[in-house]
Amino acid sequence: MRIAHVAPLWESVPPRGYGAIETLVAELSAVQVLDGHDVTVFASGDSKVAGNLHSAGAPALHEAPGIAEPEIYRMLQLLDVRDRADEFDVIHSHVHANTGCLAIPALYGLRSPVLHTVHCYFNEDNTRLFRRFATERYVAISDSQRSRLPELNFLGTIHHGIAVEAFPFAAEPVGANPYLVFLGRIRPEKGVHIAIEAARLAGLPLKIAGRIKHSDRTYFEHEVQPHLDGKRVSFLGELDFPRKTSLLAGAVGTLITSRIPEPFGLVAIESMACGTPVVSLRTGAAAELVNDGVTGYLADSIEELAAGIRRLPMIDRASCRQHVAARFSIRRMTDGYERTYRTLTRS
Amino acid sequence: MRIAHVAPLWESVPPRGYGAIETLVAELSAVQVLDGHDVTVFASGDSKVAGNLHSAGAPALHEAPGIAEPEIYRMLQLLDVRDRADEFDVIHSHVHANTGCLAIPALYGLRSPVLHTVHCYFNEDNTRLFRRFATERYVAISDSQRSRLPELNFLGTIHHGIAVEAFPFAAEPVGANPYLVFLGRIRPEKGVHIAIEAARLAGLPLKIAGRIKHSDRTYFEHEVQPHLDGKRVSFLGELDFPRKTSLLAGAVGTLITSRIPEPFGLVAIESMACGTPVVSLRTGAAAELVNDGVTGYLADSIEELAAGIRRLPMIDRASCRQHVAARFSIRRMTDGYERTYRTLTRS
Repeated sequence: MRIAHVAPLWESVPPRGYGAIETLVAELSAVQVLDGHDVTVFASGDSKVAGNLHSAGAPALHEAPGIAEPEIYRMLQLLDVRDRADEFDVIHSHVHANTGCLAIPALYGLRSPVLHTVHCYFNEDNTRLFRRFATERYVAISDSQRSRLPELNFLGTIHHGIAVEAFPFAAEPVGANPYLVFLGRIRPEKGVHIAIEAARLAGLPLKIAGRIKHSDRTYFEHEVQPHLDGKRVSFLGELDFPRKTSLLAGAVGTLITSRIPEPFGLVAIESMACGTPVVSLRTGAAAELVNDGVTGYLADSIEELAAGIRRLPMIDRASCRQHVAARFSIRRMTDGYERTYRTLTRS
Repeated sequence: MRIAHVAPLWESVPPRGYGAIETLVAELSAVQVLDGHDVTVFASGDSKVAGNLHSAGAPALHEAPGIAEPEIYRMLQLLDVRDRADEFDVIHSHVHANTGCLAIPALYGLRSPVLHTVHCYFNEDNTRLFRRFATERYVAISDSQRSRLPELNFLGTIHHGIAVEAFPFAAEPVGANPYLVFLGRIRPEKGVHIAIEAARLAGLPLKIAGRIKHSDRTYFEHEVQPHLDGKRVSFLGELDFPRKTSLLAGAVGTLITSRIPEPFGLVAIESMACGTPVVSLRTGAAAELVNDGVTGYLADSIEELAAGIRRLPMIDRASCRQHVAARFSIRRMTDGYERTYRTLTRS
């Protein structure tokens, strides 16, 4: 099958640092190439993909501060996809926040089937655009996400998959001093302050890792920094993959305390792949990712988070790894997309 | 004639504060209504226009910090224009920086003629998009702008017009202490530091007024603030229309020191409308706005700016006002657009 992926341009494919969608596109397209498909990835010019790369004419925009109007490159990319549309049996668009949603009108009306995987959170703004194109073809990344805009023409829900074998498995949390992990962007809606409070209630140290955007600096300074003592609460900054996974593997548990309905939660999957159970607020897709009582606990309050933390020793870490291998592999994700593509090309 | 204007959404039409394009759309459409045209303005929901308003479904995005994805509203606006295109004899799109350029692909291929007035500076990014749509129909706002991308299908150059009668005329600069003015955004490319140095060389106090964006704070702190002494150099912040025009009218001259080729310069026109001559670097459209030796002076260096400042008393302030009334009135601009519209509707 001739498959085109339309990736974001903010990071390269694969990303040099964090980049959930870019990682997914890299891994999905690599398996599709191995499966014998002819794959073209429309992405930033510094991307390195298994199939054919169609460069957007600029490097990853995140690393190109000289670019005055990044959205221009998104539009040029979409015009390139339109121009080449007839070369593909399916065009798989990865819709992300901000300029990502422009793919929906920009790829409208092509003869070749277009499938949009919705990676972003539905908010009041983008919902207006999605509703206007409700009959286009969508894939949700969780049933939770899908339930928030059920009138969209969702062909299915396909959970993200990760390369489980790339994650180190720890049968026991390593080291003399047990700790919890919070991993993710340091922003109010991610509830870092909630994780700090839950860890304190449960009496375990918390290690926090993640990127702080300039606009979230005030939150960090007011809600996180005052708690940092290097012992009970410590901040490690943004970690590369090896350091991130060893941090996860060494932990007693990972806290997920987002206050918004996240459409997915890669950190939960990555943590469980390392054998580390998850204690999560029951928001967004959490219940689809964490097998409550088996691979971690779901909670509705800070007190319940603390109770879950105290019960973490009852979780079998091997079950966490098996859960991810069985439910969140790249193979399962790739098969899900292949089935969906077949539906489109038959119609 | 049934005319549609597609305005930016960042400010309302007319703008509550500064907003060159929004002011132009408000005044152009008001005269067109008086001329008997059926005018519809696609603009932010809090706009107040002389003709019919088609709301973008959100207030001015600048004043709506709760809006997570402003570019969505731009796309929804353009989809609305597409949906209603057949209702208009001409669609007049006002292309600005950032998401404004999306109008070019988004309004491509309509049966009704589309005319794009290019309000933005051509940079490396947007040039790629303009080149791709070189055969669309454009109006330049200066010959200088047009000369930077001559392969575009420019139907003409139409300078901006202002409501000359709304500006107070001062036959002599008022007050005991003569001063110069710098008016505009406080950013490196506007050359505020150059204006400070030129005023110092010429021995006249400089009053600076304008908005400082967060991202330009460092420039202000390093290049402007150290010079502020409340006498030789003073900073007045962002001024409303009455305070801005009385500042201009009271000045000996206005300094324009932009280091980039500005496609136009409303401040030059506004200053001369008040009777206040302009001393400008010979960049961008300056030579089309300032009648060298008659309404001010053009300079190629800081020394020449200072020399121009010293010669300001030789300028007849009434000539400045007359120059603007003759060359930069809203009537002349509106007539220019009407002629261009007629060309389109005949073809």
